[in-house]
Amino acid sequence: MKKQRAGIQGELGAFSQEAARQLLGNQAQVIPFQRFDQVFGALRAGKIDVAVIPMENTLAGSVHENYDHLLNFDVRIAAETNVRIVHNLIAPPGVRFKDIRKVYSHPVALNQCLRFFARHPKMERVSFYDTAGAVKMVMEERNSDAAAIASRVAASIYGAKILRRSIEDDRHNFTRFFLLYRRKDAPRRTTHARQWKTSLVFTTRNVPGALFRALSALALRDVNLTKIESRPLRGKPWEYLFYVDFLGREDDPRVEKALGHLAEVADFLRVLGSYPRGR
Amino acid sequence: MKKQRAGIQGELGAFSQEAARQLLGNQAQVIPFQRFDQVFGALRAGKIDVAVIPMENTLAGSVHENYDHLLNFDVRIAAETNVRIVHNLIAPPGVRFKDIRKVYSHPVALNQCLRFFARHPKMERVSFYDTAGAVKMVMEERNSDAAAIASRVAASIYGAKILRRSIEDDRHNFTRFFLLYRRKDAPRRTTHARQWKTSLVFTTRNVPGALFRALSALALRDVNLTKIESRPLRGKPWEYLFYVDFLGREDDPRVEKALGHLAEVADFLRVLGSYPRGR
Repeated sequence: MKKQRAGIQGELGAFSQEAARQLLGNQAQVIPFQRFDQVFGALRAGKIDVAVIPMENTLAGSVHENYDHLLNFDVRIAAETNVRIVHNLIAPPGVRFKDIRKVYSHPVALNQCLRFFARHPKMERVSFYDTAGAVKMVMEERNSDAAAIASRVAASIYGAKILRRSIEDDRHNFTRFFLLYRRKDAPRRTTHARQWKTSLVFTTRNVPGALFRALSALALRDVNLTKIESRPLRGKPWEYLFYVDFLGREDDPRVEKALGHLAEVADFLRVLGSYPRGR
Repeated sequence: MKKQRAGIQGELGAFSQEAARQLLGNQAQVIPFQRFDQVFGALRAGKIDVAVIPMENTLAGSVHENYDHLLNFDVRIAAETNVRIVHNLIAPPGVRFKDIRKVYSHPVALNQCLRFFARHPKMERVSFYDTAGAVKMVMEERNSDAAAIASRVAASIYGAKILRRSIEDDRHNFTRFFLLYRRKDAPRRTTHARQWKTSLVFTTRNVPGALFRALSALALRDVNLTKIESRPLRGKPWEYLFYVDFLGREDDPRVEKALGHLAEVADFLRVLGSYPRGR
């Protein structure tokens, strides 16, 4: 059987690789890209079969760029998973903790270790495009004063050493990932999941109470919202797209009625997928 | 009369300085800080009188960090303004367009000039903490292959040359700024504005329909929402704070009733300020 090709953003060892393992097991071939739009582009072009994409973090919030891509590339959500984020201070073998002056990582990771940096004011934070990529880079450069912040797996892949474990400020640190297919290739839904979620995006006319009326389509049928997110509408300053997640499956009769009602009051509506709720 | 001290993030010449001019005229003394939390910290400590802070951009969306700071530092919104964002390619005098290989700017600015970079593939995008700071840096370093993307004012302040004007992809590019005071120092509201806005933040219990009930407090009184934004709640994964802007003034009887009703259904509610609507 041909291995499924799964695109991720970031070098091997990024948290996206752990998400791909949770979603697809060890059978998928993980293919790294530098930017998110490149992953979505490769999916559209058929160069990969699926994409594993971070959507929100419990501390940093949504990855807004990816919400925009969900709409602009014609994808469908097939699954979600949550990855616990543990940040480690990682350096090439031989580098001593007390010599470290520069610490490279993704800005979100650097911002999640503020207490560590407050305790070690000699260490300068340097933004890098990716956590695992920062480990790869410090291993290549081999400066005696440079370290990276990344996952345990990244340290192991690149043969680097963990100098301090779990330096993140807050242990309630999870990132939610989606498994995405091209819309036409999305697999049929199985019926094994206990609970389902549906994600959709809509716009409303810019009139008083428009969002309230849109949400009433769900609330009047006891459909439970789990997230609402607004994004600016291009070309229409101060108007917004709304991304909504709720509990329930697209083909549940109650949800079907809610979606029909929502379609009446929305200017634009697209269902992005129904998928089993992550743990 | 003592000049009002206004804190901004970014070097002099940043778009925040233009916002400060729109909000305070030319009389205020603008004091630059490197990070947003430093501006808020200086306001709390009384080292500055007001802060001028970007909250959202019509293309990039909200500056989420600052929504968190609105709540964590005890501030009040006294005014808003919108600044039209024009990006220019800026280099030290003598640098030739065809020699440019590295272009430094804030990641948001770099991402707003994607068509320019697609036409000039030899130019590498390099992230810098600030647009105006990138101009200052290329003027100090004086490399013959480096340029920055920033405002016209930044070029003029640092004596740099504009090589290409208005290279942003989309002209509908505005950033919305707040003028912030310490809560106890916020000025009394004048009554001259034609239209007012109020900003508030609330949480709901995590039960079906909770957000719908909260919004009904506004919708049932024809209070017109202009923005809703969710932010993750620290320590409670997958629960959210909601930031809402609506048209109307806190002491308008209709708004007072809506706020009373909202307080009944919300777990937590704080009004962040009422202020004249920006043009």
